[in-house]
Amino acid sequence: MALGIAGSKVLVLGGRGFLGRHLVDLLVKEGCSVRIFDRPHRCAVDREGCPPTVEVFEGDFIRGEGLAQALVGVDVVFHLISTTVPSDSNADPIGDVNSNLLGTLRLLSLMRTAEVKRIVYASSGGTIYGNPYALPVPENHPLGPICSYGVVKVAIEHYLGLHSKLHGLVSNVLRISNPYGAHQTRIGTQGVISTFLDRLIKDEPIEIWGDGSMVRDYVYVTDVSRALLLAGQRQKSGTFNIGSGVGHRVSDILRILQERTGLTGTVRYLPHRKFDVERIYLDVSLAREELGWKPEYSLERGCSLYCDLLGIKPPEELALA
Amino acid sequence: MALGIAGSKVLVLGGRGFLGRHLVDLLVKEGCSVRIFDRPHRCAVDREGCPPTVEVFEGDFIRGEGLAQALVGVDVVFHLISTTVPSDSNADPIGDVNSNLLGTLRLLSLMRTAEVKRIVYASSGGTIYGNPYALPVPENHPLGPICSYGVVKVAIEHYLGLHSKLHGLVSNVLRISNPYGAHQTRIGTQGVISTFLDRLIKDEPIEIWGDGSMVRDYVYVTDVSRALLLAGQRQKSGTFNIGSGVGHRVSDILRILQERTGLTGTVRYLPHRKFDVERIYLDVSLAREELGWKPEYSLERGCSLYCDLLGIKPPEELALA
Repeated sequence: MALGIAGSKVLVLGGRGFLGRHLVDLLVKEGCSVRIFDRPHRCAVDREGCPPTVEVFEGDFIRGEGLAQALVGVDVVFHLISTTVPSDSNADPIGDVNSNLLGTLRLLSLMRTAEVKRIVYASSGGTIYGNPYALPVPENHPLGPICSYGVVKVAIEHYLGLHSKLHGLVSNVLRISNPYGAHQTRIGTQGVISTFLDRLIKDEPIEIWGDGSMVRDYVYVTDVSRALLLAGQRQKSGTFNIGSGVGHRVSDILRILQERTGLTGTVRYLPHRKFDVERIYLDVSLAREELGWKPEYSLERGCSLYCDLLGIKPPEELALA
Repeated sequence: MALGIAGSKVLVLGGRGFLGRHLVDLLVKEGCSVRIFDRPHRCAVDREGCPPTVEVFEGDFIRGEGLAQALVGVDVVFHLISTTVPSDSNADPIGDVNSNLLGTLRLLSLMRTAEVKRIVYASSGGTIYGNPYALPVPENHPLGPICSYGVVKVAIEHYLGLHSKLHGLVSNVLRISNPYGAHQTRIGTQGVISTFLDRLIKDEPIEIWGDGSMVRDYVYVTDVSRALLLAGQRQKSGTFNIGSGVGHRVSDILRILQERTGLTGTVRYLPHRKFDVERIYLDVSLAREELGWKPEYSLERGCSLYCDLLGIKPPEELALA
């Protein structure tokens, strides 16, 4: 497939983060001239593994430092930065607005100055709808976030729409469900799959908020980076759900990981948290029609590949060894 | 009708503004103990006409000064403050977020500290839906604001919903269309009726953005203050459109005012502005069912009463004199 983005100069904000690392590798492979912007700390720690042709700009998104320079000559911005996660955002909504919303408004203003006309934004399919009325959730479902993280994502989506309408910005918003895969942090704040896996391996108790019946849409990171790439090629604006389109219980995740690793682990059940959405999975038909994208990885296959990358052998191989 | 709010201590934020002045008079009449919070400048200028029993707290909403003291012992807060109007908000979205959104988040935090459990918020029926897909617009229509003023109102609505869910706040949101009536400023930034009227009287050119076909829902301020009062009595949260439920062209407004005043005026047509919604009027059936409210004033009657209050005699009286 001939991609419209080859040869373009792209800037990945958060290029050393979980999604960013996958996207950067893919963009380099597709022939883009890739620049990343990330915190000095992350650039230093994670420089290893970054393709050598990639330009690295260190800066502070929250204070806007270094961003203007990073935007010079850029064709497309991929905005993957979030300074909060759903579970901690309600503790400090003012900080959330100050860093993520005001940071993005400054970015949009700097993009106008630098005449950068295209942006792809990583929004959140798991939080902006709140507890949905209908499943799978289509993009035109009313938005009712129940955590600050989701409220801010919605406000950013609206400001992107406003810049499209008023200033001709080409803005593509991907409402990504629950991505998982290599490079995801395993500190227990986001990413149940990587967290569970880490606990299983270390034989530490696995904590489940609620009774394990909570349903989520888990999407493999390779599928997500392909969707981001396809969105970056578009010449018009749009908003797309990006997920597997399938719902899985938290207890299913545990079972799949137990089977794949051959480890049982111990589980500690904790009270349900009010800001957690009960059941959600996304209708991804619009992305299929408009982006020519569909999820390629089932949960079992994605989890198995992720385990392979972490060097975790399946039990049958262990038995043979 | 016995009102649940009589005897309550209520705080009106923006109590010396357009809607605030009407609401304060009504709350006093209904037997509430009324406190207002407004800018020192406005409190000084507009103190005349403020019922003597009303407690006046001067402060700065943007910086949060004086708000904590004003909240002590309060049962219900009416939040009517906006530091921007739709037409100027896009020039400085960062300022809009800093003042209105962060100001409201600080208010919500202070309300929790002061254990104030009820709030009524004046949202915007005219801007948060953007250009609607269906008319009249019901509350569950997708939100797609095309000005910063509307984006911020949506974010505030979401944070109110979040505080209801997480902290038991009783929050009632009124999505008010285009209110008009006495005490509205006539500086041409908001309120086409008061602005047109002022220009007609002064024989200054009336400016119309676009060709006059833009449709809006104009609601008389007496209807709005009654809706605010009814919302303040509710013991559970809700979101309600408050409008006349009828659409009128800008050119209709001009004709009605010309007929009522007997003045023709001169009109200057200016280019359509991108952030102006083309056609909107609200479905107000939910407010009828849940609040027991309905608009009582037609546009003709409201305009005529407004003219009466301004001392403008109808042409037939002038002819007799």
